[in-house]
Amino acid sequence: MDIADLVAIREIEQLKYRYVRALDHKDWELFRSCFADDATATYGDRLEFASPDDIVAYMRENLGPAMITLHQVHHPEIELAGDEALGTWSLQDRVIMTDFRLLLDGYSCYRDRYARGADGAWRIAHTGYERIYEHLVSMDDVPSFNLLANKFATG
Amino acid sequence: MDIADLVAIREIEQLKYRYVRALDHKDWELFRSCFADDATATYGDRLEFASPDDIVAYMRENLGPAMITLHQVHHPEIELAGDEALGTWSLQDRVIMTDFRLLLDGYSCYRDRYARGADGAWRIAHTGYERIYEHLVSMDDVPSFNLLANKFATG
Amino acid sequence: MDIADLVAIREIEQLKYRYVRALDHKDWELFRSCFADDATATYGDRLEFASPDDIVAYMRENLGPAMITLHQVHHPEIELAGDEALGTWSLQDRVIMTDFRLLLDGYSCYRDRYARGADGAWRIAHTGYERIYEHLVSMDDVPSFNLLANKFATG
Repeated sequence: MDIADLVAIREIEQLKYRYVRALDHKDWELFRSCFADDATATYGDRLEFASPDDIVAYMRENLGPAMITLHQVHHPEIELAGDEALGTWSLQDRVIMTDFRLLLDGYSCYRDRYARGADGAWRIAHTGYERIYEHLVSMDDVPSFNLLANKFATG
Repeated sequence: MDIADLVAIREIEQLKYRYVRALDHKDWELFRSCFADDATATYGDRLEFASPDDIVAYMRENLGPAMITLHQVHHPEIELAGDEALGTWSLQDRVIMTDFRLLLDGYSCYRDRYARGADGAWRIAHTGYERIYEHLVSMDDVPSFNLLANKFATG
Repeated sequence: MDIADLVAIREIEQLKYRYVRALDHKDWELFRSCFADDATATYGDRLEFASPDDIVAYMRENLGPAMITLHQVHHPEIELAGDEALGTWSLQDRVIMTDFRLLLDGYSCYRDRYARGADGAWRIAHTGYERIYEHLVSMDDVPSFNLLANKFATG
């Protein structure tokens, strides 16, 4: 492993951090820029997308201000192969559905593929995860539940 | 990006990890040593500090043994500019207020500034975060709640 | 710090990520391969092991499909000393005991020792943590609790 490899690994990690930051801040333009033009995605058993525009369209439509998403990714294991790379990550996510008064906690194992473009920038070529665990609870079971801060609160 | 950049980025990450470890272990001397002498801080909308001594005094006074804090920081995006640097991080924190029987869960986006001193060591010049989400629940809603371990338990 | 140090630190981080991935996926062969042959472990006040086979035997026996474990490690502070190294980490773990309907949330501070073998590979020589915080709650207090995904569900 030489310095170019260390730099490439770091660039891929930065890409992934930008991807989750864009997702949770609902910055769909930044989110789109993380994907290669032929990127695909498979999130668990329920969601599969054949293009980056499909991924972005789904997120934009389903993750409005009443869906607070909090994704954090850990444990990067990156394998480089020239201008391609594979990445394994551990995901923890929480979704607060303020309209439905539901709180979802999940854990997944991501297996991504990355590609370095002609411009030298790494992008996500495929992203996908296996769901390890997921639970849903209603805030109605926790009468004291008090939402103190919400960046996406409206009105 | 050369090897000096990679080392500087790693040193800044180590600084941040030391900062949260000192905070959660209530090691206020170590916590103070993470800040430059002219450091400032802005934590969400509620807390603003004009000096490192003010930051430390507030934490020391408000985070006694009945306030267990658990901060974990993720997704470092570090931008170097000579002896200064900017850092973006994703924070997840939990505070357990044993006297009040309250449990707080929060998520924030940190935007820090770092400075390298004449001694070559990086320190926090400014730290601040935007609160993305925060909730509070009472343990009274969860009668089975059983605190099995607490490093800061007294008596 | 030179490039060999940066590579060694990264290899140790990869080792730790493989260790938690193996643990949570219940891949006991991969888990065993993370340890040196004379490795020891001390998990909090309750669990101490004198050999890697003892560690693996305990986990295999106690962490069956009705014990979903989710470990995530953060904040690596790695100190190299030739073919040995020390590592401090922040752990967050959750255990879902589906048969007992219990959910455990814990936080620990890991202090590990690593050794590089004659084959050049880093392995865990000692792993141990101090428990900072741990709570247990019963799902009976949360009637809406709905387990939506479980990689280890049987039947």
